[in-house]
Amino acid sequence: MTKVCIIGDVGHFSYAVRAAQSSDSLCISAVSDGAERMGCEKAFKAVSECNPSAKQYADYIEMLDSEKPDIAVVNPCCAYNAQVSIECMRRGIHVFSEKPAAVTLPQLETLREAYRESGVVFSTMMAIRYTPHFAAAKRAVESGAVGEIRLMNAQKSYRLGKRGGMYLDRRLYGGTIPWVGSHAIDWLYWFSGKRFLEVYAQHSSIANRGTGDLEVSAVCGFKMEDEVCATVSIDFLRPDLAPSHDDDRLRAVGSTGVIEVRGGKVYLINENGEQTLENAEPVNIFEEFVKAVEGKPSNAVSAEDSFYVTEACIRARESADAGKVIKF
Amino acid sequence: MTKVCIIGDVGHFSYAVRAAQSSDSLCISAVSDGAERMGCEKAFKAVSECNPSAKQYADYIEMLDSEKPDIAVVNPCCAYNAQVSIECMRRGIHVFSEKPAAVTLPQLETLREAYRESGVVFSTMMAIRYTPHFAAAKRAVESGAVGEIRLMNAQKSYRLGKRGGMYLDRRLYGGTIPWVGSHAIDWLYWFSGKRFLEVYAQHSSIANRGTGDLEVSAVCGFKMEDEVCATVSIDFLRPDLAPSHDDDRLRAVGSTGVIEVRGGKVYLINENGEQTLENAEPVNIFEEFVKAVEGKPSNAVSAEDSFYVTEACIRARESADAGKVIKF
Repeated sequence: MTKVCIIGDVGHFSYAVRAAQSSDSLCISAVSDGAERMGCEKAFKAVSECNPSAKQYADYIEMLDSEKPDIAVVNPCCAYNAQVSIECMRRGIHVFSEKPAAVTLPQLETLREAYRESGVVFSTMMAIRYTPHFAAAKRAVESGAVGEIRLMNAQKSYRLGKRGGMYLDRRLYGGTIPWVGSHAIDWLYWFSGKRFLEVYAQHSSIANRGTGDLEVSAVCGFKMEDEVCATVSIDFLRPDLAPSHDDDRLRAVGSTGVIEVRGGKVYLINENGEQTLENAEPVNIFEEFVKAVEGKPSNAVSAEDSFYVTEACIRARESADAGKVIKF
Repeated sequence: MTKVCIIGDVGHFSYAVRAAQSSDSLCISAVSDGAERMGCEKAFKAVSECNPSAKQYADYIEMLDSEKPDIAVVNPCCAYNAQVSIECMRRGIHVFSEKPAAVTLPQLETLREAYRESGVVFSTMMAIRYTPHFAAAKRAVESGAVGEIRLMNAQKSYRLGKRGGMYLDRRLYGGTIPWVGSHAIDWLYWFSGKRFLEVYAQHSSIANRGTGDLEVSAVCGFKMEDEVCATVSIDFLRPDLAPSHDDDRLRAVGSTGVIEVRGGKVYLINENGEQTLENAEPVNIFEEFVKAVEGKPSNAVSAEDSFYVTEACIRARESADAGKVIKF
């Protein structure tokens, strides 16, 4: 039996809950708060429904030392992700972390060091990689459907709804570019395989309907290896009456074709004409992570990818804060 | 009768030919080359079909001085647009110029001066403003359909086809950001009404299938007034088998709604839900220009807008060339 503990419930702990519900070899034994006053009631309620004997701790250090889990699901508020992950890794516990893995470069450096010394498996919740549409598009690109990628446009657009807690305070939240944009920035790297060279980004809190510091619009321009260029557009201004919470898109323009993920579908135009691709089967990201922990073949997001994309997010946010180009 | 001459045929002289075909008060009397060795045979052929007595000149100065037209349609290769327009304006001839109006800042400054001294009407061929889909979207934004615009993503994607002539030589062509991107950059300013503060752009000639200097991928990030941010994506990599030559798009995210022009349609989501807007009636841009020349109410693109967008295009291309942020 693989023992899992959840720390915090600001993010997507539910990937682990769903995986545990459909597995005989996974047990979520306990849940704790991960950052002072952010709570974990939502996670505890969800876990209790499938494991009535699950415990709740106020202090995650106490939980880690008592429960001695194999895996920690880390999703306190963003500013605490790195610190909590480091505490887990120092105890030899595998870490499934909410993204961004860190919100400052010094945090990220310490996290990378702790990872190198730990020997554990570390991954972030880049769950959109596993959706049927993005997975299908990635597979098509890998099979050469668009030739060499030359340009990408990535979009994240969310409904704002009513947001409190960490969203009100940039010191806790880390910024919209790392929180929302991390997915889009991950796609750029994941699809093209190119490293980032420079970023110029902007963000603004104007029109955030009184949601504290929250930036509700942002764009990034990334210069990548081999003169590949990319834009990222992020907003929290998707209207309440929109047909879905999010409007995730990726358009990758290659030397021989254009592929586009939009509205949950994948559109491809190349030398074979225009077609809508068949979506892939959905995959639970946490199950892939568990496979990696068990040493099995897995599509888990590597620690290296997790750290690298985190770095790109932080540098993009720093570009927006400073109003200048940041080099990698 | 309003007398029109056409100089060069690299661009969209056909707007004027079509207007003349359906007007009793417009006459295209002559056509000339506008740049050494670039020719005007295509324009002369089109004009001759509706005016068999139209003349062809090798030298446009000679044509201007002999024909003394009211209006000049200026579309030699891009690098000559400004010089030819200036010669026309110094003779009191109204100028309908291909975009970009100039390809360097010194050219643009001289052009602006010549315009101020001339008293003529000057406008550029920002014809996409007059398409049924873009006109409908603009009207909706003006009526408050998305509140205050906070973020924009503009896209130009063209088939490359086989291109020679000016496209092979950046000194004649001026670059893909001014030639193709000028439309997208115009939309940003036209839709939001905000001035540009900074631009960070990139472009690349890689994968241009042997088309000389031609940049086939480019992106720009514009910082605009009031923390409005915008991206522009430009490519010549639309596959030959795509269902149309171009894939023009604009997405404008406002404080209360999102509007999107894509595939010739306009999609709006706001507090009234999701809808596809009715397109506007098509309008011939040259007819609007002629109205302005006649002193009638007109939606012609103003000289000020033409020059300002030209400046933004040149600064964006300079950012891409220099690899740094350019301030306005």
